[in-house]
Amino acid sequence: MTEKHDPIESLLKAVKHNTLSIDEAKQQLSHYDELGFAKIDLHRKKRQGFPEVIFGEGKTKAQLIKIIESLLKHNEIILITRIDKSKANAIIAHYPQLEYHTIANIVCTPIDSIEKTEHYASIICAGTSDLPIAEEAAITTEVMGVSVQRFYDVGVSGIHRLFAHIEAIRKGKVSIVIAGMEGALSSVVSGLVDHPLYSVPTSIGYGANLEGVTTLLAMINSCAPGTSVLNIDNGFGGGYNAAMIVKMIESH
Amino acid sequence: MTEKHDPIESLLKAVKHNTLSIDEAKQQLSHYDELGFAKIDLHRKKRQGFPEVIFGEGKTKAQLIKIIESLLKHNEIILITRIDKSKANAIIAHYPQLEYHTIANIVCTPIDSIEKTEHYASIICAGTSDLPIAEEAAITTEVMGVSVQRFYDVGVSGIHRLFAHIEAIRKGKVSIVIAGMEGALSSVVSGLVDHPLYSVPTSIGYGANLEGVTTLLAMINSCAPGTSVLNIDNGFGGGYNAAMIVKMIESH
Amino acid sequence: MTEKHDPIESLLKAVKHNTLSIDEAKQQLSHYDELGFAKIDLHRKKRQGFPEVIFGEGKTKAQLIKIIESLLKHNEIILITRIDKSKANAIIAHYPQLEYHTIANIVCTPIDSIEKTEHYASIICAGTSDLPIAEEAAITTEVMGVSVQRFYDVGVSGIHRLFAHIEAIRKGKVSIVIAGMEGALSSVVSGLVDHPLYSVPTSIGYGANLEGVTTLLAMINSCAPGTSVLNIDNGFGGGYNAAMIVKMIESH
Amino acid sequence: MTEKHDPIESLLKAVKHNTLSIDEAKQQLSHYDELGFAKIDLHRKKRQGFPEVIFGEGKTKAQLIKIIESLLKHNEIILITRIDKSKANAIIAHYPQLEYHTIANIVCTPIDSIEKTEHYASIICAGTSDLPIAEEAAITTEVMGVSVQRFYDVGVSGIHRLFAHIEAIRKGKVSIVIAGMEGALSSVVSGLVDHPLYSVPTSIGYGANLEGVTTLLAMINSCAPGTSVLNIDNGFGGGYNAAMIVKMIESH
Amino acid sequence: MTEKHDPIESLLKAVKHNTLSIDEAKQQLSHYDELGFAKIDLHRKKRQGFPEVIFGEGKTKAQLIKIIESLLKHNEIILITRIDKSKANAIIAHYPQLEYHTIANIVCTPIDSIEKTEHYASIICAGTSDLPIAEEAAITTEVMGVSVQRFYDVGVSGIHRLFAHIEAIRKGKVSIVIAGMEGALSSVVSGLVDHPLYSVPTSIGYGANLEGVTTLLAMINSCAPGTSVLNIDNGFGGGYNAAMIVKMIESH
Amino acid sequence: MTEKHDPIESLLKAVKHNTLSIDEAKQQLSHYDELGFAKIDLHRKKRQGFPEVIFGEGKTKAQLIKIIESLLKHNEIILITRIDKSKANAIIAHYPQLEYHTIANIVCTPIDSIEKTEHYASIICAGTSDLPIAEEAAITTEVMGVSVQRFYDVGVSGIHRLFAHIEAIRKGKVSIVIAGMEGALSSVVSGLVDHPLYSVPTSIGYGANLEGVTTLLAMINSCAPGTSVLNIDNGFGGGYNAAMIVKMIESH
Amino acid sequence: MTEKHDPIESLLKAVKHNTLSIDEAKQQLSHYDELGFAKIDLHRKKRQGFPEVIFGEGKTKAQLIKIIESLLKHNEIILITRIDKSKANAIIAHYPQLEYHTIANIVCTPIDSIEKTEHYASIICAGTSDLPIAEEAAITTEVMGVSVQRFYDVGVSGIHRLFAHIEAIRKGKVSIVIAGMEGALSSVVSGLVDHPLYSVPTSIGYGANLEGVTTLLAMINSCAPGTSVLNIDNGFGGGYNAAMIVKMIESH
Amino acid sequence: MTEKHDPIESLLKAVKHNTLSIDEAKQQLSHYDELGFAKIDLHRKKRQGFPEVIFGEGKTKAQLIKIIESLLKHNEIILITRIDKSKANAIIAHYPQLEYHTIANIVCTPIDSIEKTEHYASIICAGTSDLPIAEEAAITTEVMGVSVQRFYDVGVSGIHRLFAHIEAIRKGKVSIVIAGMEGALSSVVSGLVDHPLYSVPTSIGYGANLEGVTTLLAMINSCAPGTSVLNIDNGFGGGYNAAMIVKMIESH
Repeated sequence: MTEKHDPIESLLKAVKHNTLSIDEAKQQLSHYDELGFAKIDLHRKKRQGFPEVIFGEGKTKAQLIKIIESLLKHNEIILITRIDKSKANAIIAHYPQLEYHTIANIVCTPIDSIEKTEHYASIICAGTSDLPIAEEAAITTEVMGVSVQRFYDVGVSGIHRLFAHIEAIRKGKVSIVIAGMEGALSSVVSGLVDHPLYSVPTSIGYGANLEGVTTLLAMINSCAPGTSVLNIDNGFGGGYNAAMIVKMIESH
Repeated sequence: MTEKHDPIESLLKAVKHNTLSIDEAKQQLSHYDELGFAKIDLHRKKRQGFPEVIFGEGKTKAQLIKIIESLLKHNEIILITRIDKSKANAIIAHYPQLEYHTIANIVCTPIDSIEKTEHYASIICAGTSDLPIAEEAAITTEVMGVSVQRFYDVGVSGIHRLFAHIEAIRKGKVSIVIAGMEGALSSVVSGLVDHPLYSVPTSIGYGANLEGVTTLLAMINSCAPGTSVLNIDNGFGGGYNAAMIVKMIESH
Repeated sequence: MTEKHDPIESLLKAVKHNTLSIDEAKQQLSHYDELGFAKIDLHRKKRQGFPEVIFGEGKTKAQLIKIIESLLKHNEIILITRIDKSKANAIIAHYPQLEYHTIANIVCTPIDSIEKTEHYASIICAGTSDLPIAEEAAITTEVMGVSVQRFYDVGVSGIHRLFAHIEAIRKGKVSIVIAGMEGALSSVVSGLVDHPLYSVPTSIGYGANLEGVTTLLAMINSCAPGTSVLNIDNGFGGGYNAAMIVKMIESH
Repeated sequence: MTEKHDPIESLLKAVKHNTLSIDEAKQQLSHYDELGFAKIDLHRKKRQGFPEVIFGEGKTKAQLIKIIESLLKHNEIILITRIDKSKANAIIAHYPQLEYHTIANIVCTPIDSIEKTEHYASIICAGTSDLPIAEEAAITTEVMGVSVQRFYDVGVSGIHRLFAHIEAIRKGKVSIVIAGMEGALSSVVSGLVDHPLYSVPTSIGYGANLEGVTTLLAMINSCAPGTSVLNIDNGFGGGYNAAMIVKMIESH
Repeated sequence: MTEKHDPIESLLKAVKHNTLSIDEAKQQLSHYDELGFAKIDLHRKKRQGFPEVIFGEGKTKAQLIKIIESLLKHNEIILITRIDKSKANAIIAHYPQLEYHTIANIVCTPIDSIEKTEHYASIICAGTSDLPIAEEAAITTEVMGVSVQRFYDVGVSGIHRLFAHIEAIRKGKVSIVIAGMEGALSSVVSGLVDHPLYSVPTSIGYGANLEGVTTLLAMINSCAPGTSVLNIDNGFGGGYNAAMIVKMIESH
Repeated sequence: MTEKHDPIESLLKAVKHNTLSIDEAKQQLSHYDELGFAKIDLHRKKRQGFPEVIFGEGKTKAQLIKIIESLLKHNEIILITRIDKSKANAIIAHYPQLEYHTIANIVCTPIDSIEKTEHYASIICAGTSDLPIAEEAAITTEVMGVSVQRFYDVGVSGIHRLFAHIEAIRKGKVSIVIAGMEGALSSVVSGLVDHPLYSVPTSIGYGANLEGVTTLLAMINSCAPGTSVLNIDNGFGGGYNAAMIVKMIESH
Repeated sequence: MTEKHDPIESLLKAVKHNTLSIDEAKQQLSHYDELGFAKIDLHRKKRQGFPEVIFGEGKTKAQLIKIIESLLKHNEIILITRIDKSKANAIIAHYPQLEYHTIANIVCTPIDSIEKTEHYASIICAGTSDLPIAEEAAITTEVMGVSVQRFYDVGVSGIHRLFAHIEAIRKGKVSIVIAGMEGALSSVVSGLVDHPLYSVPTSIGYGANLEGVTTLLAMINSCAPGTSVLNIDNGFGGGYNAAMIVKMIESH
Repeated sequence: MTEKHDPIESLLKAVKHNTLSIDEAKQQLSHYDELGFAKIDLHRKKRQGFPEVIFGEGKTKAQLIKIIESLLKHNEIILITRIDKSKANAIIAHYPQLEYHTIANIVCTPIDSIEKTEHYASIICAGTSDLPIAEEAAITTEVMGVSVQRFYDVGVSGIHRLFAHIEAIRKGKVSIVIAGMEGALSSVVSGLVDHPLYSVPTSIGYGANLEGVTTLLAMINSCAPGTSVLNIDNGFGGGYNAAMIVKMIESH
């Protein structure tokens, strides 16, 4: 970080050369922490290309439009997750330069306009009911500038479907497994790949599935060592972590 | 059940023919239910060869010796589960005609002396830690007169080990899968066989395994349709059910 | 399985006799797993008469109609569970050769058109509220070609109702007990029959029933050895397992 | 309660007639609540014959001996529950006029010396493992001056054993059912009697029994209306309630 | 029960005297259990005056009307619980001789037309939100022919309100405490009365109340010995038990 | 409390001086507890300025209007929490002298008309979703006559935002931290202040948040010693406690 | 805090006057956060008199002796909680100037040597089993320089015992209620006092008490507004919070 | 993977050229799956340097010695986790070329003999009680050939300790946060770094910590997006994942 402009040195020099009063210097230093961290945040975004992420649930159309306006001024990439159809249509009407992914419940900067990595993340899910979360993970990964390969409908109850794709899954640099019910897919895939795997339990199931808590607990107890777990239905979190890894690999 | 001797008809005839007083007939009928069910119980054991099962936990050596004495008088097959080493040794010292299975924690009639079915039950478990429960299931099945094939150490984290044995597993008439942690083995096997599968969760694991509750819930939520679930560590229950099925198939 | 045509031997012979190039042979072998398992699946369906089962919940009318079209091309038996009235009516309008069971929430090939076993499964439930799940189990069993006898409204709070039917229940080759609340019916019936019993907890109850979790836990802890448990409201699973058993018995 | 002596009227009269100073009257009134309730407590014990109950767990031998000494001075009946063998022996050595019930883990005034009601409470339990709690209930009931009839080892897995005794159970004025595992005995008995039934879940079981929580929840969800539930292993509570009812009936 | 007509003796005599064939006697005896229990049921209702209770939830208007028709034929008392406004109005329109209790969600035989006991049950609740469950308990008790006294809005956060009524509460022969949140009222009242107390937890509360489970657990753990607990919101169960006790006291 | 008027002394004097009959004195004393506590309640309100608080949820518009009418007669301060928009508008239409806080879901006496303390409570929350609960806490505190400073949107995922305000937070006499999800803000703030901190978990989150139970448990386990916890979403409780502390400090 | 010496102003002045190089100034500022917070910590201890608290559980005798040595060098007050008898005796042997409180499991600076506030905290507990936690709260409060009044053995099952002391409890400036089982004491006391109340659930109980979780949940759901809750058995936390409040009141 | 030797092509060529009989070729292909996966496993280990990991808990000294013997023959790196002192000493006595890490409960190939990456993983933990799990993570990472930097005792209750080290933490390529209680450290660190973070909850805590379940749930609900979670006390899993990432970065 030798290239970093050093605001504290500048300030001290200004005090020394009487171009800054002690009171004003104190005032600026009192905000040091805040400026410092904010700068770090901007630095991170620059280097990693991680967009501002907006959790759409619970925000009004008006609030969302205002936030987007602010971000577009700084030419930021847009990523709004958990947005329903009605809000999404209102936003697209206002900002036709964005696109709406109906299955993923995401509004974002068009995927095709984003430069992506050569390496890819493998996104694997068991059944069609898990698709919204799988797509949330996939679109998040892509918006963050990382390529993905989708391997859907490969649940363990017909395990030959998984084996037909295992070589391509293994070629990815990271896997995200999205599954509901007993979540066994996570352990099975982890035993077949040699890269980190993120397990995203979904709330798909009924009865003793307990709205995904059973799936979460099962995945946390995986007998395979290379897995870690996100919150129920947190496809975004899976995509965010996976994208960080592929970016780091490709930037070295 | 046309061959069944009808005690009520006999009783009524005896009343009619004055060989039985009304008071005595009433007395006998007052015990009808009890006798009826007891008879049924004996009938079941005769036909199915199911032994009296003794849950060893919480019983003293003296109590166990007394129960065995009573059963041996009727030439019953003996099966004592959940018996620790100290009690087992005391019993074997007293009844050298029985045998002690150290891993299964079972004392029983010698397995070799029991005639067994041609068809077998497939008993599958993931890791060496699950062996005591797997053996409890296996010995129970065998004591009930049913052959078993053991497929141990075939966990899903190295799934090729399972596939090396899948044909033999499929040839069994019923499967018992014993697994701890996330219990994924149950779903994977169920997708590969076409007979009923009993899932026995074990308390093997740590942390969020919750002493087997997580495994139980995961198995209950299996995405594969042909499974049903026993209580945690209930290898006996798995063996008992599996043996009933193989016996029924072979007796038809 | 000596009658099984061996595709690998054919392939190897074709390579040896130069009727197949090594590249083509490799291509075919790369799909070996998939083909192999697919074949197994078809084999299972042929032998056991198990239909493709469609979980109707979460699928659109259009999706369901498309799936049915595909299955009917192969003359498959149709079984769609968890389908609501609106979707069911749309499907029947499109495929009048199917029938809709309103209580069971099932659309399927007409039950009367399916050949069934001589032996039957006993289906027992406690109250009228459990009927939808009991019927889901019954229709599933019948669609799979197995006869059923229904014993409804025989809860333990008036246990004489159960005893009036116990002989007929015992004559079945397998029992399915469907119950909510404390699920005591499962233990009581299991003590009276000598065949396997599947317990299906229902979400019928209130308060500390916890939407069926209490019933599930109670059934898992049954003091009677011959029971195993399905997920809450999983009448289909109970029927599927029971049908496998009766079929196996009758095919031997 | 028209016969009740009215201390407040006396006090006011004394003030009016100058036999009591205002300050002293205020002092007495400030303790009104405390005296009032204390009196009530004594009154209750007199009328109902309910003894002081001592929870033995966590108290030292010395503490217990001191408490007994105090109670014996007032000729109270003694009832100490949850007392282990070592403490019990120490107490009996000190107060040979008491007796120790080893299964119930109770030290108390000799049962034979206590006058008991004509009507009885029916105490019903499933298995030998539940005996300590059943005996805690039985001895508590007897110490409180109420007769009991014991019906042990009548679990639902062999329901004919229960029916052999059902008439005698019905003749009691209240039932206490002690059971572990799935607790089905509670619902079955409740459907056969027409008096109140107290369900005492025990911590007998393993795995998903969750140390009695499953039994408790199952009993709370009983389909039979005439039951209510005590804490896990609270045999004392069951006996205390049952004794209150029989006493009230007999005193009218 | 010496007055009981003995059908078995009659039957045996008829056989002996040739007025009944053996076949017909067997036929009758084969239904013995069922008739026996049914008779017992009727006997109970006769002696105790307990009505048939109908759980209204989940039953259609048509079903309810049909059930009522059947009961009215036998001049039974009617009690339908958990019935919503729409169904209730439909029933009252059809059977104007019944009355609808809007707070209790009950339709029943008019309370005023039912003869009631001299002794009463004390029904105590904490807040206005608990009123529907308190009224379900109260109306149930009254329909069963037992007088009640209502003590509402006497929660422990302003404990002086409770003390203003404690003498009248104590005069009842049994108490029902209905409370939500932490359910402390149950322990406080139990310490002040000398009769059995039924605790009915309600689902009133929010957050960590867990829809009444917290209240249920708290009541189960009451430090006061004379309480037992019903399911969450089970006002009917509380009333049913309480009524049994008062009836038994008054019939002796 | 030497200034307290002593009603009992007056009463006793009146009896002594024959200005009060013994019957009337008894009548008054019979209500002693109730009057006593009521007086205490009034006394508390006078000294602390704590208003009557009305929990709006589950009360009708008519009920609310009637309660307000009663309170306004005594010139009480009004505080109605958990009131939805429709009810709030109806009340404001009826009592225009009150004001409606839309985010807090509170109707109350206008905040500006209430005299407030010099010291303030610091109210800190993490995200915009927690605002309704934070505002419930803030308005409650203010209605009780205590100043507040709001520090919103200072979650730990961007901890520099918190540090920018930490000095001002520290100057408050008590803190209320409102947070959902993992609730880490509570521990972080507690480590930085030297006054008591109330943690209010919110139900903001999804999946394994379990509607706030996870947040509640996390806050209860805070590694920082100066925190205590309220129920989920209980902003009112946080404000009530905080206001008591500031009032006590300022009144000394 | 105008009296606070300002190190940043000094630094800036030194830079301006060339008595400090820019590099050295940058070096000092880079440690600003750490120094700043450390200073704050020391400042807090000075002003509030809060001692360093050592959690004794899991620390060895040697570790404890070393920590004490370090603290004594700075003349700090010593407070070690959760220390067992063996460790405590070893420490007292080494540092006879400390004292050991056997019930509270605390080793600390002698209570008598610590100057205490005029106002006191009321410490209330239900039964003798709760004493260790109550004493942990009491000793913690006293070590922190705050007076306490103990009100032990005043459980709600005999509520007159509580009322005998209520005036003295009310005179305290804060209450700590320590209770197990259903924890009702917390709600009852809170309704009778007008100061903040800290509820400390204990793990005293059995069965469905769930090692204190039930008590914790019940206290969190208290119907009384002026309470907040600590972790199970966290008497120290209760004392720490209560002491902060009394200190703040007395220092104003 | 173009360099990969293709065994299937060789086999087919051998068949074609008659150097392999069809029967032998079939035999080899029948083991294809198993060999294929085994080869993959070996390949993974070669490329990534991941050692065979032995879970020491539940294995005897004899078993462990035998496993080590087998691994040493293949010159494998040794890593045995969860091994207690007694077993560890026995192994070191037998294999003095291994080393025992007492805090981490690990026996392994000497850390100094393993070549490590230039980049490092940051390992952060809150308190001294979490050290065993933190060291399990650290040693695992190092045995896998990845450098680590340890940042211990930086809990959020004194957050300045964390900030003193934040720059060094940020320079790592991945973080592992080990924490018990409320686990807030995970969210705080995640907000300050721009690389993936693995959260390992520990079972450190008491009461409502529920042996780490609370910590696990809190970490799963982190408000910071770049975290994922391992099982309770699974330091090994954290190290394994972190090592995979650093290795992948450095190998590109």
